[in-house]
Amino acid sequence: MMENKNISRPMDLTRIQVTDDFWKREMELVRKEVIPYQWDALNDRVPGANPSFCMRNYRVAGKINKIRREQGKNYVETVYPVDFNGGAPEVLPESMDQMEDRFYGFVFQDSDFAKWIEAVGYSLTQHPDEKLEAVADAAIDVVCDAQQEDGYLDTFYIINDRSRIFTNLKDNHELYCFGHLTEGAVAYYQATGKDKLLKAVERYADFISDHFGPEEGKCKGYPGHEIAEMALVRLYEVTGKEKYLDLSRFFTDMRGTRPYYFDYEQNAKQDDGLRYEYHQAHLPVREQKEAVGHAVRAVYLYSGMADLARLTGDEKLLKACETLWDDIVDRKMYITGGIGGTHIGEAFSFAYDLPNDTAYAETCASIGLVFFARRMLQIKADSKYANVMERALYNGILSGMALDGKSFFYVNPLEVLPEACHKDERKFHVKPVRQKWFGCACCPPNIARLLSSIGSYAYTETDDTLFMHLYMGGEITRTFGNGAEAKIVVTSGLPWDGNVTVKAETDSDQPFTLAFRLPDWCDSYTAEGIEDAQTEIRDGYLYVTRVWKDNSEVKLSFPMEVRMMQSNPQVREDAGKVAFMRGPIVYCMEEADNGKDLHLVSLGDDPQITEVSSEEFGYQTVMLEVTGRRQVKEESEEKQLYHIYRRPQYQEAKLRLIPYYTWANRGEGEMQVWIKER
Amino acid sequence: MMENKNISRPMDLTRIQVTDDFWKREMELVRKEVIPYQWDALNDRVPGANPSFCMRNYRVAGKINKIRREQGKNYVETVYPVDFNGGAPEVLPESMDQMEDRFYGFVFQDSDFAKWIEAVGYSLTQHPDEKLEAVADAAIDVVCDAQQEDGYLDTFYIINDRSRIFTNLKDNHELYCFGHLTEGAVAYYQATGKDKLLKAVERYADFISDHFGPEEGKCKGYPGHEIAEMALVRLYEVTGKEKYLDLSRFFTDMRGTRPYYFDYEQNAKQDDGLRYEYHQAHLPVREQKEAVGHAVRAVYLYSGMADLARLTGDEKLLKACETLWDDIVDRKMYITGGIGGTHIGEAFSFAYDLPNDTAYAETCASIGLVFFARRMLQIKADSKYANVMERALYNGILSGMALDGKSFFYVNPLEVLPEACHKDERKFHVKPVRQKWFGCACCPPNIARLLSSIGSYAYTETDDTLFMHLYMGGEITRTFGNGAEAKIVVTSGLPWDGNVTVKAETDSDQPFTLAFRLPDWCDSYTAEGIEDAQTEIRDGYLYVTRVWKDNSEVKLSFPMEVRMMQSNPQVREDAGKVAFMRGPIVYCMEEADNGKDLHLVSLGDDPQITEVSSEEFGYQTVMLEVTGRRQVKEESEEKQLYHIYRRPQYQEAKLRLIPYYTWANRGEGEMQVWIKER
Repeated sequence: MMENKNISRPMDLTRIQVTDDFWKREMELVRKEVIPYQWDALNDRVPGANPSFCMRNYRVAGKINKIRREQGKNYVETVYPVDFNGGAPEVLPESMDQMEDRFYGFVFQDSDFAKWIEAVGYSLTQHPDEKLEAVADAAIDVVCDAQQEDGYLDTFYIINDRSRIFTNLKDNHELYCFGHLTEGAVAYYQATGKDKLLKAVERYADFISDHFGPEEGKCKGYPGHEIAEMALVRLYEVTGKEKYLDLSRFFTDMRGTRPYYFDYEQNAKQDDGLRYEYHQAHLPVREQKEAVGHAVRAVYLYSGMADLARLTGDEKLLKACETLWDDIVDRKMYITGGIGGTHIGEAFSFAYDLPNDTAYAETCASIGLVFFARRMLQIKADSKYANVMERALYNGILSGMALDGKSFFYVNPLEVLPEACHKDERKFHVKPVRQKWFGCACCPPNIARLLSSIGSYAYTETDDTLFMHLYMGGEITRTFGNGAEAKIVVTSGLPWDGNVTVKAETDSDQPFTLAFRLPDWCDSYTAEGIEDAQTEIRDGYLYVTRVWKDNSEVKLSFPMEVRMMQSNPQVREDAGKVAFMRGPIVYCMEEADNGKDLHLVSLGDDPQITEVSSEEFGYQTVMLEVTGRRQVKEESEEKQLYHIYRRPQYQEAKLRLIPYYTWANRGEGEMQVWIKER
Repeated sequence: MMENKNISRPMDLTRIQVTDDFWKREMELVRKEVIPYQWDALNDRVPGANPSFCMRNYRVAGKINKIRREQGKNYVETVYPVDFNGGAPEVLPESMDQMEDRFYGFVFQDSDFAKWIEAVGYSLTQHPDEKLEAVADAAIDVVCDAQQEDGYLDTFYIINDRSRIFTNLKDNHELYCFGHLTEGAVAYYQATGKDKLLKAVERYADFISDHFGPEEGKCKGYPGHEIAEMALVRLYEVTGKEKYLDLSRFFTDMRGTRPYYFDYEQNAKQDDGLRYEYHQAHLPVREQKEAVGHAVRAVYLYSGMADLARLTGDEKLLKACETLWDDIVDRKMYITGGIGGTHIGEAFSFAYDLPNDTAYAETCASIGLVFFARRMLQIKADSKYANVMERALYNGILSGMALDGKSFFYVNPLEVLPEACHKDERKFHVKPVRQKWFGCACCPPNIARLLSSIGSYAYTETDDTLFMHLYMGGEITRTFGNGAEAKIVVTSGLPWDGNVTVKAETDSDQPFTLAFRLPDWCDSYTAEGIEDAQTEIRDGYLYVTRVWKDNSEVKLSFPMEVRMMQSNPQVREDAGKVAFMRGPIVYCMEEADNGKDLHLVSLGDDPQITEVSSEEFGYQTVMLEVTGRRQVKEESEEKQLYHIYRRPQYQEAKLRLIPYYTWANRGEGEMQVWIKER
């Protein structure tokens, strides 16, 4: 393996305390609202919501293991049908305890626990909570009881039919659940130092490692839903065991090779790569040049590929990552950082096909894009990655959660007409109001795990450099080669103003470099306190190298002006339209402020823009007022569907724009990001 | 039954000879191309096309009947699964004769013959053809051999499982096939005077009449796919047997009543009307106020309702027809006369939801709208019905057939980006080029039967009035009460100029009224030769009452100017856009004339329009040249997906517009009807 000194590492969360006004509020929502709600959901205690059955399935599997041990050789395995959605009894009994000992819920239900324990781990680093930790430890006991003697740990197959494990990698999410469990175990171990779950996952990973591999007789398959690739890298990094890295590489290298493994396991003979674009298994990964298929799977795969490229120095793999990144960001990403232009397959559409009203732009996909970005940043600190990370975080991801943390969007459209969401099946996936929880609960827990670990995206480091990819108030503890420690205290006005202060608190003078990202939303900046430092600008970062003494301070100021944005003319849906941004924040019009029929609103000549500070959403945000106009509907023309052209009449209108992430917090109504010029 | 002297009748086709330049060409395409091709298709002789199996199924049913007769009481019924798509063997044998005696194809495959024989009947009235008639007679023999002794005649159930007839009215198209067969039988009888098929259909109708009805013990169901309602009215009108009218009324009156018959027959207990909107069976027909569900089914039902309202004087039924008509025309119809805004259920979308690029706008649905319009016109000669009929005929229907009569569109979009049709599953229903034939062959034969009988839409009559709803060159023979005959000779420049001449050729002077529709595409007109006549304008018709002598002539001139059209501002997809019409013709831009990226084309201020006569499509048409502009794509901006607003730069462009119905005759390319103003 090559050593590359430029490669940076995310920081252990125990070394970062996020104190940022903006992000801390979001993290507290996760801690106080999402994590407890999620635990109730895992235990089927949310009135009115579909039960998850997650913890129940683990307990049933544990019971089976117990009986198996007790009966020894006399034990007869349980065999039930292996259905993707194990469902629930049509009528739930009074008490769940009256239900049969079966597997219930979707095939991937185990992952609900994994995502929860991951979020809990991160949260504990920022806010120790003995009670929560005790609940988590008890839950881990239940999960570990479900593990079988050989290490296998997937309740779907343990309960339904152990003999069929790893026989439907394409659809049955077995390795996906493993990947999530691994991420959860690593996070919990890093947060608490407790390794019970980590050890269980290692045993499971060893089992998988014995089953899959290049050696003759071993299975040549790979995950239908990617995540194990990057999870195994994390497991390798925390345990140092190369076999996990090898397994990740094996999964990645086998993907898309011919004959297609998914053909083989399903006894199909199509050899039709198009069928596997959904899984990014249409081509070997190094030959993939276009981001295709299910958007979440895609960015999870690319994240794993970036991890491997980083650790192995594989140039071809890195090149593929770069090409795929550019394909997303230059051709397939909404201005909000949303990805996935079509709900069919929750997938990327073709280049420049970015419909606003039928967008998929799943919250999880933008989260995956952040994973991918952070990994690319580790390889090369190029602000192009961090700019996108910031864009997705403040817009397409945060819009996934209500301001009270109690309801969520899967889909983050850029234009909504509620009537269409209710009446037009083509838009049934677009919800005009956030929903409580989902039967297939991926987005809320994904938001929880991302926000709880947000600090690890803001900062990465090498031996001599601390990178600030995002400006996020907090305290970073940095240990130096000589054992000395320094605390770096960051304050930030983002996303509402661009003033950032970075101050060192240290007992001893320390030479090192701070690398500050120069955001894409301003053309200039000012920096104070770098007069006696060595500075360099490279790839969108300002590198400040100096000896940092106690109270050394750098003040950065990034001017934050409202920008009227335009899309590439190839984006048909945005032609003749503009969107507004201020700093990293994308704005939108809502019916609550601007009335109905937003399609009749336009800007006209020379729009005047005013920034307005507002506390409407419970804390200070910046809204925009823009002068525009609204086409007048003549009474006489209302009935006739088509008529001879009459020059439209307009009324002046003062448009009010709110941050996109705050939309749909005031009931159901129309919304639009892109506004007609005329 | 009430007698209403104002109610008009369509004319027997034997009394109209269409000589119109425009329509005769289309009729000849049908005669020379479509009807022979269709016959080959019915007999599985089209290389490369999916076999229809239609005539084959009739022969197999005939064989079964023969064996049944021979074996008498010893006969054991054949029993096969009753699948919606009976399909075909995976690999077809060298010769179809080697195939098993099974039912193949869709459940509605019998209707292929019915549509063909109907078109043949009409065609023979305009162009006698002994050879074709002999082929048709032989085909009728095959079909009649398939009829069972009790009158039943549906090969799907005869072959698969006779015991299950009429058990799945909702899905299995049994009464739909009956309806089409009836239409075909009536048409063939009226054209040739031969009644073999008509008698067979009467026996089948008697059988159905014994099975369904208000009497105790009889089935209370009604067709899942409507058409029998209007077909039975035709059968009543040609036979005079009231039982057929009663059966039509029974089907219509039962529709949508509770408990839902479709629930009953499927043993379902939902009582959920929404599920039956697709079939227009969500409400009793007199309570239906909105056009919903499958658009073809809807307009077929409304046509039958209009027939019944006409014959029974049922005011509530008439009111429902009027309300549904207005709902379509004021809120749910494309400017081309296309209906059906969504491919999901091939259905109407909600009011004003008329997306151009994902339109369904099925050719058959526009044809059904013409059926509905003609029936409303019979009740009341109001030009609002004829205007829509004309719009649909010249645009949304004719676009369904290529200029050479050899390929067809199901779906008639108003905007096409071929890349999207190929790559975006949401638009897979939109084809950028016409297709040869369809497995589910509804549109081509529907075009064939409509165009072959076009004269019956142009003219209707009462005892004292001849209505000209469309201006179509031809000779009409009119017999008067005293037995005298007159020939009315019409010449028309439509759709390219608005000059119409109507001349009488008669041996004796005859007083009667000619009623001329005043088209909605001009504000004024001139009429010569009406100086000594009594004239009146009512509901968009000019009534000219006089004594017509030999060579009496009226010359009408309807000025035909290019009109720039706008849609109701509630149509979001057309906001800020215009379309061009000239006379009844809607125009469009094609890539062949205007290059790619039509979304970057706009009109700018004060567009100048020039009419250009062109023979590009083999006969003289009028094209338009419109001054406009095209947004320049800067090289530098091509890569970046989003950038700060730059005032777009435009190049002047001369746009060439062609009649919409001629699009997609020059290979694959972009197309747009609605053009941005700016």
